[in-house]
Amino acid sequence: MGALTPARGPKQPQQERSRATRLKLLEAAIACLAERGWSGSTVSVVAERAGVSRGAAQHHFRTREDLFTAAVEHVAEKRRGAVKAVAHNLPPAGSIARTWVIVEELVGLYTGPLFRAALHLWVAASDEEQLRDRVTALEARVGREAHRTAVALLDADEAVPGVRETVQGLLDMARGLGLANLLTDDSARRDRVVEQWAKIIDSVLNPADRR
Amino acid sequence: MGALTPARGPKQPQQERSRATRLKLLEAAIACLAERGWSGSTVSVVAERAGVSRGAAQHHFRTREDLFTAAVEHVAEKRRGAVKAVAHNLPPAGSIARTWVIVEELVGLYTGPLFRAALHLWVAASDEEQLRDRVTALEARVGREAHRTAVALLDADEAVPGVRETVQGLLDMARGLGLANLLTDDSARRDRVVEQWAKIIDSVLNPADRR
Repeated sequence: MGALTPARGPKQPQQERSRATRLKLLEAAIACLAERGWSGSTVSVVAERAGVSRGAAQHHFRTREDLFTAAVEHVAEKRRGAVKAVAHNLPPAGSIARTWVIVEELVGLYTGPLFRAALHLWVAASDEEQLRDRVTALEARVGREAHRTAVALLDADEAVPGVRETVQGLLDMARGLGLANLLTDDSARRDRVVEQWAKIIDSVLNPADRR
Repeated sequence: MGALTPARGPKQPQQERSRATRLKLLEAAIACLAERGWSGSTVSVVAERAGVSRGAAQHHFRTREDLFTAAVEHVAEKRRGAVKAVAHNLPPAGSIARTWVIVEELVGLYTGPLFRAALHLWVAASDEEQLRDRVTALEARVGREAHRTAVALLDADEAVPGVRETVQGLLDMARGLGLANLLTDDSARRDRVVEQWAKIIDSVLNPADRR
């Protein structure tokens, strides 16, 4: 962006302010959605939460749908970032400890506030024509990326029959654990499920004769 | 109920009509919720859909929260019925075919319209104080029942370490598959995941030395 509009004169601070305002609105939109759902998330509510005037908010996003489709993309972007971050600081390859940490991290993608916001978006999108296509496309992208990351981290060979579906089922389980966490704190039960499923995944992907 | 108010005279038909009206309202509430979400499901909308006057609807349910907590219980009741129905017409014990059908049926509990309505309720409940406790309690009951059914059908021995968590993870996976089906028809992918995970669950619960 800097290359197109050189940073000089009073232009730059204004652009920066504008970008900062936009970001504040997107973050506020996500927080609102996670806490109050679609029905409680109007442009006015989001603007107030962001500490931005309603006029300024509408300068950035003409309608509620504009605001929330931008927020969807912002969430997807952050979730893709979170997916990539899983790769850091893993135990050595070939250990069950590594599989455990990977399963834990993958499940973690579905139990935080980003997933909570995404969940509200999905459910809203299932009823709102304007959101539906956008959310579906973005969700497919996040899902593909999570799958690719899981396959790479687990060093899973998708040429082996069943391996692809093993990893897919693991991510479906992670999604289900996220849902179970929506109404209550499910973390103690979740830890035990993660421990057991890490063992199962490890034995399926790394049978004794491959070790 | 019959014991308290004996069924005789003109009373009975009126009671029956009243019960039928109530049921129509509950069914309409669930359909509305599955299709239009919480924000689109007002008492007026539900009454119109049920073909009941707004006055009659309010005679049965004073507020929207009354209507939907009753609908929650009705959904839970139907889902518990669906859980029990899984037990019928299973292949012979000890076969992989049986495990496959059981996993398929358990996953089926989370991919139909009842789950869709429940999902809308959970998400609404996560924002609506009045719904939250009621939905959480009922959801816990449905979850426990699904778990008990799965353990019994799979003939899983929960005294063996890890078995309980294997079954829990399977139900979490089923829930995640239900979520994946919210925005798109996910049935082809789901069938492949179910086939593979039926094999995995079967080998974990029935290791070669137990067969």
